[in-house]
Amino acid sequence: MSDVTTVLRGGTLLTLNASLDVLDDAAIGIAGDRIAWVAPGAAQPEVPPEATVIDMSGRLLLPGLVNTHTHLPMSLFRGLADDLPLKEWLEKHIFPAEAKFINPESVRVGTRLSVAELLLGGTTTCADGYSHANVVLSVAREMGLRGVFAQGIVDAPAPGVPDPSLHFTVLRRHLESRALGGVQVPAVFAHAPYTCSRETLLRAKDLAREYDALFFIHVAEARWELDWCRREREGLTPVRYLHRLGLLDSRTVLVHAVHVDEAEADLIAASGAGISVNTESNMKLGSGVTPIANYLERGIPLGLGTDGCASNNDLDLFLEMSQTARLSKLASGDPVKVKAADLVQMATRGGAKVLGLDRDIGSIEPGKQADIIALRLNRPHAQPLYNPYSHLVYSASAADVDWVMVGGDILARDGKLLKADTASIRREAVEWAGKIRGEQG
Amino acid sequence: MSDVTTVLRGGTLLTLNASLDVLDDAAIGIAGDRIAWVAPGAAQPEVPPEATVIDMSGRLLLPGLVNTHTHLPMSLFRGLADDLPLKEWLEKHIFPAEAKFINPESVRVGTRLSVAELLLGGTTTCADGYSHANVVLSVAREMGLRGVFAQGIVDAPAPGVPDPSLHFTVLRRHLESRALGGVQVPAVFAHAPYTCSRETLLRAKDLAREYDALFFIHVAEARWELDWCRREREGLTPVRYLHRLGLLDSRTVLVHAVHVDEAEADLIAASGAGISVNTESNMKLGSGVTPIANYLERGIPLGLGTDGCASNNDLDLFLEMSQTARLSKLASGDPVKVKAADLVQMATRGGAKVLGLDRDIGSIEPGKQADIIALRLNRPHAQPLYNPYSHLVYSASAADVDWVMVGGDILARDGKLLKADTASIRREAVEWAGKIRGEQG
Repeated sequence: MSDVTTVLRGGTLLTLNASLDVLDDAAIGIAGDRIAWVAPGAAQPEVPPEATVIDMSGRLLLPGLVNTHTHLPMSLFRGLADDLPLKEWLEKHIFPAEAKFINPESVRVGTRLSVAELLLGGTTTCADGYSHANVVLSVAREMGLRGVFAQGIVDAPAPGVPDPSLHFTVLRRHLESRALGGVQVPAVFAHAPYTCSRETLLRAKDLAREYDALFFIHVAEARWELDWCRREREGLTPVRYLHRLGLLDSRTVLVHAVHVDEAEADLIAASGAGISVNTESNMKLGSGVTPIANYLERGIPLGLGTDGCASNNDLDLFLEMSQTARLSKLASGDPVKVKAADLVQMATRGGAKVLGLDRDIGSIEPGKQADIIALRLNRPHAQPLYNPYSHLVYSASAADVDWVMVGGDILARDGKLLKADTASIRREAVEWAGKIRGEQG
Repeated sequence: MSDVTTVLRGGTLLTLNASLDVLDDAAIGIAGDRIAWVAPGAAQPEVPPEATVIDMSGRLLLPGLVNTHTHLPMSLFRGLADDLPLKEWLEKHIFPAEAKFINPESVRVGTRLSVAELLLGGTTTCADGYSHANVVLSVAREMGLRGVFAQGIVDAPAPGVPDPSLHFTVLRRHLESRALGGVQVPAVFAHAPYTCSRETLLRAKDLAREYDALFFIHVAEARWELDWCRREREGLTPVRYLHRLGLLDSRTVLVHAVHVDEAEADLIAASGAGISVNTESNMKLGSGVTPIANYLERGIPLGLGTDGCASNNDLDLFLEMSQTARLSKLASGDPVKVKAADLVQMATRGGAKVLGLDRDIGSIEPGKQADIIALRLNRPHAQPLYNPYSHLVYSASAADVDWVMVGGDILARDGKLLKADTASIRREAVEWAGKIRGEQG
């Protein structure tokens, strides 16, 4: 134990281990980037005199949250166009704004803003999909956010790829960056069954397999997709179509999966694929209600995602937990099936499993990476606290997070980032917003 | 203008006046408890040298929020019992806890905790309904929260009223306190058509009329109420039944009003009664989706309410705005009908109208009470800010509120209460929670 460099002592610890142990007045020993030991108050190993001891009393500690679906650069479009029908929103506002304003510099600025929001809100890992994924990945690396950064693939021009025939060249180059190591890894994001041909999907998955990369795809988000796919995609619904193409396996992540019937849920469960649930975005765009209980029953790996800031308009997993729980109760009329602890698991160990990172993150256990967050409990809404899972899902907010560690590195303290200049991040974002607003006006 | 004592200068001001004017770099002159003038940057009246000038640049200013339905003392039961069926939740947890633990002292402690949460979250007016309403009212008065504080009426024993025949004696005594004046006024809360007899409802409304007090009632919250009322209440649905009894008028507030058909909405519109919409509570208890668009179309006065902390589990109107907008879009499949500005109006001028306080509060206009809040915009999630209504509904959080004024009195600055000891409020609440937990264990 002499290699323990940091000890967190006191507070209530939600380990999110397999038995969901909750320890009062616990201590966590951290050696470098990993957790060396976790112990309740009475059984703490000796602490080396040179270790830093951090007092966490009065706080709630849990694993850093995992956001399984974001489009980080889109924070520059936060609130640009709301309360509009999807088609008008996309075609008159978002696509033109992307075509005009998305370039490596704006991607860098938008991603910096988003990573600041994620870390301050207790998210330590995210899975992103966008153009210029190499820039997104490098910003995450600079700022210390762990994650999977996927390059988007679509049968059309995209920012940075005006000639669609070059998509796979750009994608391969991005996947090559895996060789550089680090806790930010590249991946593949095929946009959707309705924007990618059969050939594109198969080729993208092949390339993902070649690099052992995750393969993401938006699927069954809106009801119209079902009819469209039945008409245009071999008479099959989206999930059945992906299954027939052999795209479902444990390295595939289905994003949204709102309109999925029980037989399709069985196919997903048998394949080992994971699902990213994006309730707030699905509500705001009027898409539908994800059948969480069906997925939980089948043991499908489930994570939460915020989607991009153009359709949410935040990157807040506390809201995502709260609203997914509430909407599940409302839609099913059954307040019992989806419980607070289910949501906290989805936001931590579930998301880690979806991303294939569950050996390293998702719980606070010896041997795992030291991705840990602490919430203050000194605001009126945080008391009384009878049940920490209820507290996290139904009462807590991202603003309660006041301490964040990723891989043993303390990135936020007292609700402030320690290694990023938030004033300059904000100033750059405001400058870009000025340009974007000018065009819209 | 020489009586202006305080000037707020700079920032973006959402007046919430009838034309929803938004002023950049505005100024507000305050004389005592009232707003003397509101002016854009270039047209500011001269400021008396003795006036205090407060710099609000970089902030968003708006009227204090109005919460039209709370049970403030129930914050002591926050998170005590979640993820349970309504019947089990009520009968095995909430009712026994109320019978055992609700007394004037616990009501005082729970209300103090709730008022602290309300004020810190930007709510400056609330409408409460509970037992021991005189205690709730007096705590609100001590802490400076404006509002309507209703004594509960039901055909059964209640905390403080073990003998149901004494309910009206207690109620009349509470209503007499109106004569004392002040911005905290007493009112009547008849629990529901299914817990009050016809005679009780009529008598309660008569007493409300005698004192010109508001009459609140929970109505059409859950679907089972419809069948129950048709069977037990003259063959009528709840709203039709209240209409037949002559209980609908401009001094009546219908709380929930989830299961209401178009003809009933017409009856409500014609009567002048207002509605308190409680989306988060309705979701968590699986009650249903309030037909906001039907109400907006008819011009029915509409406010937002959080309900009590046992069923929400917070008093946060920012979440209420966000979730009401999102759920309305999801349920109707129409993202256009209910817009961000509608929600901000419901949380301010709409709520004021529901409570009959619209001559005094709900907007920032000369002659109105100086109930004003300011939000900081320096967190990553607050930028870019293209549209302040979108920002408030889809991105902002209660934790962004950092300055609160009620009736010209500054109650919070830098997110901290200036006139209440939050540490002692928290300590008392934790002590009570210990007793309550002991019993539950």
